Amino acid sequence: MSTEWVLHCATSLAQLDPGATASATQLAQYYDVPQAYLAKQLQALVRAGVLAATTGPRGGFRLARAASEITLLQIVEAVAGTSSPYECREIRQQGRGALPPEECRSTCVLAAKMAEAHQAWRGSLAGVSLADVLATLPPSAPARTRLRLTGTA
Amino acid sequence: MSTEWVLHCATSLAQLDPGATASATQLAQYYDVPQAYLAKQLQALVRAGVLAATTGPRGGFRLARAASEITLLQIVEAVAGTSSPYECREIRQQGRGALPPEECRSTCVLAAKMAEAHQAWRGSLAGVSLADVLATLPPSAPARTRLRLTGTA
Repeated sequence: MSTEWVLHCATSLAQLDPGATASATQLAQYYDVPQAYLAKQLQALVRAGVLAATTGPRGGFRLARAASEITLLQIVEAVAGTSSPYECREIRQQGRGALPPEECRSTCVLAAKMAEAHQAWRGSLAGVSLADVLATLPPSAPARTRLRLTGTA
Repeated sequence: MSTEWVLHCATSLAQLDPGATASATQLAQYYDVPQAYLAKQLQALVRAGVLAATTGPRGGFRLARAASEITLLQIVEAVAGTSSPYECREIRQQGRGALPPEECRSTCVLAAKMAEAHQAWRGSLAGVSLADVLATLPPSAPARTRLRLTGTA
């Protein structure tokens, strides 16, 4: 759920004019999602270097880098972490079938194959930038996004 | 966790002699995992056509097909399902920024890119068969597996 939120928020922020920002309140209203929880996700994007936060009465969030320099992987991993969902608990080393330690110095082949699959997933998302996403939107989208998100056309 | 279990169980069953079986009890002892929970996972593999279950006093589980015809993807999806972990709740259609329905007839580009990444993950696992996994094991592994799993060398 939060992955969908941050992908959409970053895509919307990518449509603002250079230097313009949107607040957590504005983003929460734009998508009708709980503001407190969204604010935490936005802070995670700041920590990941995807967004920059400015303070003050007109403060808010903007992209920390050019849209072409921000990948979907960076956005997703900012909130979901970088580790593979596959959990290897080394069951090859337990029970009646436990392998001797000298056969377990290298990664279990099953864990290695699951890690390769995770890298394939990461590679796919690393190959898509926010600029690539923007290029698929209708030409009218950015002006509408700016108007509805920040009240400026 | 259960993904690790079933990957290892299928790999062990792939090392049995043709027609030989191992019971849920034997597999649970082999890996020192809870038998009742493991049995449910093994049944999921049967439903997915990865394993065949035989009944009777010497009944148990064996591969339903040749090891070269069973992929890691089939094993993983038997217990984890086929859907992507990314949840698209169509937030593009809600809140102040809601897009008109006519702009939402095709999949959201962000959901589409997440689906592409999931397909890359699936493709990676679909490219690895149990026979590929067995080919990486030491030559002594199958005999030891048979001995410790079923008591037959």
